[in-house]
Parts: sequence; structure tokens; C-alpha cells
Amino acid sequence: MDKLHLDRHISRQFNAELEMLRTQLLEMGGLVEQQVADAVSAIETGDIALAEKVIDTEEKVDDFEIELDEQATLVLARRQPAASDLRLVLAVTKAIRDLERIGDEAQKVAKMAIALADGGANRRGASELRHIGASVQAMMTQGLDAFARFDAEAALKVVEADESVDREYKTAIRELVTYMMEDPREISRVMNVLWALRALERIGDHVRNVCEHVIYLVRGLDIRHISLDEAEAKIKQK
Amino acid sequence: MDKLHLDRHISRQFNAELEMLRTQLLEMGGLVEQQVADAVSAIETGDIALAEKVIDTEEKVDDFEIELDEQATLVLARRQPAASDLRLVLAVTKAIRDLERIGDEAQKVAKMAIALADGGANRRGASELRHIGASVQAMMTQGLDAFARFDAEAALKVVEADESVDREYKTAIRELVTYMMEDPREISRVMNVLWALRALERIGDHVRNVCEHVIYLVRGLDIRHISLDEAEAKIKQK
Repeated sequence: MDKLHLDRHISRQFNAELEMLRTQLLEMGGLVEQQVADAVSAIETGDIALAEKVIDTEEKVDDFEIELDEQATLVLARRQPAASDLRLVLAVTKAIRDLERIGDEAQKVAKMAIALADGGANRRGASELRHIGASVQAMMTQGLDAFARFDAEAALKVVEADESVDREYKTAIRELVTYMMEDPREISRVMNVLWALRALERIGDHVRNVCEHVIYLVRGLDIRHISLDEAEAKIKQK
Repeated sequence: MDKLHLDRHISRQFNAELEMLRTQLLEMGGLVEQQVADAVSAIETGDIALAEKVIDTEEKVDDFEIELDEQATLVLARRQPAASDLRLVLAVTKAIRDLERIGDEAQKVAKMAIALADGGANRRGASELRHIGASVQAMMTQGLDAFARFDAEAALKVVEADESVDREYKTAIRELVTYMMEDPREISRVMNVLWALRALERIGDHVRNVCEHVIYLVRGLDIRHISLDEAEAKIKQK
């Protein structure tokens, strides 16, 4: 079984509070997921209005972070949860920070979308942006889904996807640097592509973090500093 | 007064546990501080052995992170702290993550030090690396010191220093991009300088985070999304 069994509480109020934390985290996640989708779309289509929407959403994400963090602290102070409840609240506080960072990085992608908007769709780097953007967007959706369902196996798949995004990112950077050498007049523009790719790669890292919190929460397993094969074996064996 | 007054505890054991958390965080901080200092020095002197030492230390930092995080969770589960004790434990769990990230970024700087080692000391970008490296190293020392003394005013100074590092970083990137355009043969090497500068700038961001935790801890004030002038006024007025 992959599901997390939260302790049963005598207090219905406590159950409601825990459930609300989880729901609100997912709501914040949905907002950030939309930011990522819009940023990726803006960079592909050159839609400046959409990019500006992403930038404007940032404040809302920040407010969410502060509010959710306070609520989590309140739950800790008031309910003094133990065992899996405590782990849940701590996972939420950690995931909040990652979501806020994802919002930050989406904003960077949106800024680069504005800088790149006049370059046309067939410019160099466009296919890399499209490809890595699509991968990261899929990770985002699957990662939130894994959190919503407390699903460790699904979370591990997202961690694996991040490894492949990291590889694609490195290849893309190498190719773009070579391209800059061939055509130095393009350096300025290609640098903007590089920064956008970099922000996308960071988004992947943060989604991965969220998934690592899910695995820790469900299995009590810290996979950050072990190999993926090892992690997979441990998750499947339980 | 800037100092945090921890609640007095009937349990001496609890006091000891809280104190140990704080001490161990500072120990981890010391290790990471040394990593940053060594990475900055390696990039300046081209000392490959020193850079490799930084890379090897990473594992120790990771172990520290896992262990401290577990200990903090244990304290929460066993002692169920409230008020300022709770805030302290939460600040420690957050600071741990930032310290681990700083270690990661120091490792990136060290890798770039190895890549750049044969370039000679007078290469383009060297003065930017030296300057920003020195600023970030100073921030690191002052930030840990602010945590050790629970000193909100000192922490705010570090936050201010980060603003100036961010400005210097942006100027340096602009200059180096211009330089690449003038001399495309240097692109590959200058890109390594850019990545190293980027990692240093990220270290500054994480030290700033640690200091923001200190301010929150001591003053209950979340300054992340307000202006620095506002933050200063609030910290001084209390």
C-alpha cells in the first residue's frame, strides 16, 4: 500500500485542520502549476500579456506561502501532533517553500519570454525550451498529484523524470554554447534562452524536492542522498 | 534588546536538547562556511586539491542535514514545544536546508575552479569572482554569527548585503556577456566564470534566507516580501 494512514484523532477539529492544510497546499500548488504552464506557453508563443500575468501572480503566491506557513505553525503549537501527523505538517511546511521557489522561477521564465518575444518561433533554442518546458510541466502536474494521493511510487517516477530533465538541460546548454561560438551576434539572445532553461531546470529540482517529501512522509525514507535504483528497490520492497 | 528569550523549562533535559540543536546547526554552519571559503580561495588561486576537498566535503554536509533534521523532528515529537521554542526548532529545520544548499553551490564553485584552473590569475572575470566571492564569504560569517547570537539587527545587515551582491552580480553578468561578444574564442571559459558567479550569488541568497529565519525567530517578523526600509524601521522600533 502506498497510502499514508493518518492517525485517527479523537478531535474532529484536528482532522479538519490537517485536511485543510493539505487542501490549501494543493490549492497553492494549483496556482503555481498554472504559473509554470503559462510561463512555458508564453515563451513558446511570445505572448507578452500572458508572461505579465505570470509575473503579477507572484504576489499571490507569496501571500499563500506566508499564510500557510503560519497555519502550519499554529497546528503544531495547538495540536502538538506526533508520528505521521507531525511528519505531514513538516512535509507541508517544506513543500510550501518549494512551491514558492517554483513560482519565483516561473517568473524568471516569464521575464525571459518577454525578452525573447520578438525572436520568432524558429529561433535557435526554441526546440530545447519547448521540450524541457513540456517535461517540467508534466513533472509539476504529476508531482502535485503524488502529493494529493500520498503516492510514493508516483513520487519516485517524478524524481526519475528530474534526472532525465537534468541530462537534457546539460546537453542543451552545451549545444547553445557551441552555437554562440559559431554566431557571436546571437550571444545576447541565446543567453536569455540559457537563463530560461536554467529556471526550468530549477523548477524541476523543486518539484523533485516536493516528491522527496512525499516519499519521506509515506515511507519514512530519505532518498535524497542514495541512488535511484536503491530508492526504487526500497520503495517497492515495503 | 535583540536577544531571543527562550522559554524557561522545568525540564533541564529539554533545555539541553534545544541547546544541542542550536550548537549542531552552528557546527554544520561552520563546515559549510569553510566550504565556501575554500571554494572562493580555489577559484582565485587555481588550487585544484583545495577544490577537490570542497567537493569531497559535500557528503559530510549531507549527513549533517539528515541527522539534524531527524533530531529536530524528534524534539518536536517528544517535547511538543510551543511559542518561541517551537519557532526555534522550525527555524533550525529551515536553516538546515539552506546550509545544505549552500554546500551544493560551493561544490559548483569548486567544480568551476577546476575548469578554470589553467586560465591564469589575470583572466577576464577574475576580479568579479574575487569581489563577489569576498562579499559572499563575509555574508556567510556574519549570517552564522547573527544566528549564533539571535541578533535581528545583524541579520538585517546581511540581508542588505545580499541586495548589493545581487546588484554586483547583474553588472558582472552584463559585462561578461559584452566581453563574450567582443571575443567569441573566450565564450567557453567565460561561461564557466558565469556559472561560478551564479553559484556565488545563490549562496548569498541562501545566507539571506538563514538571516530571515533569525529575524522571524527573534521578532516574529516576516520580512521576505516587504521593502528593506520598512523592515529596518520595524526592527528598530521594537
